[in-house]
Amino acid sequence: MNTKSCELLVLGGGPGGYTAAIRAARKGLKTILVEKGHLGGTCLNRGCVPTKTLIEDTQMIPAVSTSHFLRGDMKIGVSRIVERKKAVVEGSRQWVRSILKGSGVTFMEGQASFVSPKELAVRDTDGNPIKLSASKVIIATGAVEDYGAGPKPDGNLIWSTDDALSLKTVPRRLAVVGAGNRGVEFASIYRNLGAGVLLVEKNRRVLPHLDPEFSDRYKKALLGHKIKVLTGTTLSSAQPDGKSGVTVVLEGKQGSQEIVVDRVLQTGHRRPHYEGLNLDAAGLVPDNGMLAHSDGLETAVEGIYVIGDAAGPPYYAHKAISHGIAAVDHLMGDNSVKPSPFMPHCIWGNPEVAAVGLTEDEAIDQGHEVKTGEFHFVGNGRAGTMGIDQGLVLIVSDAESREVLGVHMMGPHATELISLATLAMENHIPVDGIKKAIFAHPTLSETFFEAALAVDGEAIHLMMD
Amino acid sequence: MNTKSCELLVLGGGPGGYTAAIRAARKGLKTILVEKGHLGGTCLNRGCVPTKTLIEDTQMIPAVSTSHFLRGDMKIGVSRIVERKKAVVEGSRQWVRSILKGSGVTFMEGQASFVSPKELAVRDTDGNPIKLSASKVIIATGAVEDYGAGPKPDGNLIWSTDDALSLKTVPRRLAVVGAGNRGVEFASIYRNLGAGVLLVEKNRRVLPHLDPEFSDRYKKALLGHKIKVLTGTTLSSAQPDGKSGVTVVLEGKQGSQEIVVDRVLQTGHRRPHYEGLNLDAAGLVPDNGMLAHSDGLETAVEGIYVIGDAAGPPYYAHKAISHGIAAVDHLMGDNSVKPSPFMPHCIWGNPEVAAVGLTEDEAIDQGHEVKTGEFHFVGNGRAGTMGIDQGLVLIVSDAESREVLGVHMMGPHATELISLATLAMENHIPVDGIKKAIFAHPTLSETFFEAALAVDGEAIHLMMD
Repeated sequence: MNTKSCELLVLGGGPGGYTAAIRAARKGLKTILVEKGHLGGTCLNRGCVPTKTLIEDTQMIPAVSTSHFLRGDMKIGVSRIVERKKAVVEGSRQWVRSILKGSGVTFMEGQASFVSPKELAVRDTDGNPIKLSASKVIIATGAVEDYGAGPKPDGNLIWSTDDALSLKTVPRRLAVVGAGNRGVEFASIYRNLGAGVLLVEKNRRVLPHLDPEFSDRYKKALLGHKIKVLTGTTLSSAQPDGKSGVTVVLEGKQGSQEIVVDRVLQTGHRRPHYEGLNLDAAGLVPDNGMLAHSDGLETAVEGIYVIGDAAGPPYYAHKAISHGIAAVDHLMGDNSVKPSPFMPHCIWGNPEVAAVGLTEDEAIDQGHEVKTGEFHFVGNGRAGTMGIDQGLVLIVSDAESREVLGVHMMGPHATELISLATLAMENHIPVDGIKKAIFAHPTLSETFFEAALAVDGEAIHLMMD
Repeated sequence: MNTKSCELLVLGGGPGGYTAAIRAARKGLKTILVEKGHLGGTCLNRGCVPTKTLIEDTQMIPAVSTSHFLRGDMKIGVSRIVERKKAVVEGSRQWVRSILKGSGVTFMEGQASFVSPKELAVRDTDGNPIKLSASKVIIATGAVEDYGAGPKPDGNLIWSTDDALSLKTVPRRLAVVGAGNRGVEFASIYRNLGAGVLLVEKNRRVLPHLDPEFSDRYKKALLGHKIKVLTGTTLSSAQPDGKSGVTVVLEGKQGSQEIVVDRVLQTGHRRPHYEGLNLDAAGLVPDNGMLAHSDGLETAVEGIYVIGDAAGPPYYAHKAISHGIAAVDHLMGDNSVKPSPFMPHCIWGNPEVAAVGLTEDEAIDQGHEVKTGEFHFVGNGRAGTMGIDQGLVLIVSDAESREVLGVHMMGPHATELISLATLAMENHIPVDGIKKAIFAHPTLSETFFEAALAVDGEAIHLMMD
């Protein structure tokens, strides 16, 4: 069998894997990246990139139909939306491929599996077996959906998010199961396209990982877009109704009810994916389905790292990218490295929501004397020019140290504005460091400035009691 | 004559003046604000707010007409665009008025003029004279347009920006004189509305205060939108052509030429406005048309401050707001206060441009050993989802101290993204402080992160040589 040896072998070509491979190769390591599917992983092919492309296009539809100054009939070419989505995904893949190549990474397609801790077998595109021997290995094999006890996607009446991304049809009545990030984003996409959407969430609140106040406000926003929301409810069964629809059984506080919809979207949960890796041969044993790792992302086996979705929740591309950078720095000798704890959470629904750090309750539970500052977009000039009067920014700070403990945002471009908070918190900029900066006027960014002023009752464009 | 006395008298109700008044009143000062025109000053009535409202609406027109998936004929209701602009301006005024009231500021309409350094005469709305006596005075009277030797606006064929904001007509051929911030923004608004636009700039470059590379790129972007650009050119005369147009004489490197357009927009320059204040009586003497001030914004006369546009360039609302805060803190006893030097420059054209701090050349001239990092939006996932592949972020840093010296951006939401740079620079976050933060994916904010990585040749989503 042919043997290829390298200094770093990266398993998986998603954002974590390709980031690690590019960084390592640029720093001089002989690097091989093996990917069994498409370059770019979930994010690029099935997640962030295609969903944001669909959100970007479809949000034009209500913007035009509710415009105060445009009049006329517009036809929506759904197939053209799909075409652009495919082109964006394909272009992104090629972009990554060319950077890998330009950085000197050897890219191989195939399924690699361990034969020993530092040796893996892989088949090349012609089906020939090759042995790969590496000084260091990074496992960046991502995550898969898990649907638990609920009805499984069948690609027909019951959709996975992959099916939903294809826009094969715009159902008249769509039931979206799970009001987490993906559920909320797909609800928004299909609502934009004119579908009647029912959002079913087993927790008491939508987006249950958010600060409860923001969850409650978000539910109101969904209702405002005429999305029906059932919380504290599970979808226990979904059966063809004999015509073209699906009869679903919903179990909630009020008992069970049957309703008929046209399609069901199961958003599912995610868990790390190690299938085919033969972890046993590497001496790796997942605990509760997950490989444990050190601060430097090294597993129990020296020189083998696990990053990104493969390292467990949260399943965010930016976590994977930060892991990719940190793991390479660690394996090249920087033992003090660890990924930042300031992890932004973003939801690109309508409206956008984002958060980083502690909620007010969490901060109090941790013993902080908390001072909060809240500013509402209704007092923001730029939001006014955009015709937006909903949304808010909340800063949770420590009253004594003035440290920013958490920031929560809901409103236009919240997913961008949260970077101000992440940058501030990562660098321990206190509330006063935000207050003394000049934020351009009129910008949405001023809401962050005014929320910092509001910590001390000093916001300008809002009544302070 | 009736006399009202107060601790702080603010002259002018623009962003600088109302910010100062609200802050002072909340901190317990008995405060009077006098405004002779509309509350909100230039920004709210004639500047930032109405222009951004028009930009926001009109940019929908090319977005719809060039959409890859919307088909049909849309009619543009220009009068409805004007209605919304008026409603946004009126709503903003009322918002400010209610906050002034809620904060305990006494608001008076009228023209105030000094009778002594701490006494002013004003007429109330009934025409009755009132004497105002104040411990401290803030001059926040804004700026006026100055058209130099060029043709003056006549409200008919030759427009001021006020005329242009009214959207009385969309000329087939509009000559915009001055390719500064306002010229570029109005060119964009009228181009969106379908006008043929000629942009005339006497300097060698458009947006001449920008880094030359960005000016050059911006010119290309204008040409890409089919806006004709003549640099190194002045408009020396504009005369009715006897039909419905204007014959303008343009003087450039190639000599002079006559062309006919339908309207001319004179953007003019701005200078501080003290008319009617009777500065002599206060012992204040402008130098070269401008009142000098200390770091704490106090003029040569103790207890009299000058802020915002009235304090000279740059004529930005956010400068005025920062001045308003600083002046109040100074007059209340914080002698160390001074407004931040990190002043963002923003242009809301198409594309947006923004900058803060030094250009590369300026940094070298100041003796820095410079390291730059550049990232292009073509490598940014979020820009891809928006269908945007133009634009860049440039970070200028000191090679040794790692300090960020300047940041320059051109591309989608650059006017928002620049806040990341301002916040970083204000708090002396070095390049490494940006590199270690986690920026959510996929966001435009990642371009700032990648530009920081690029300072060290480490950008992920771009080929590094």
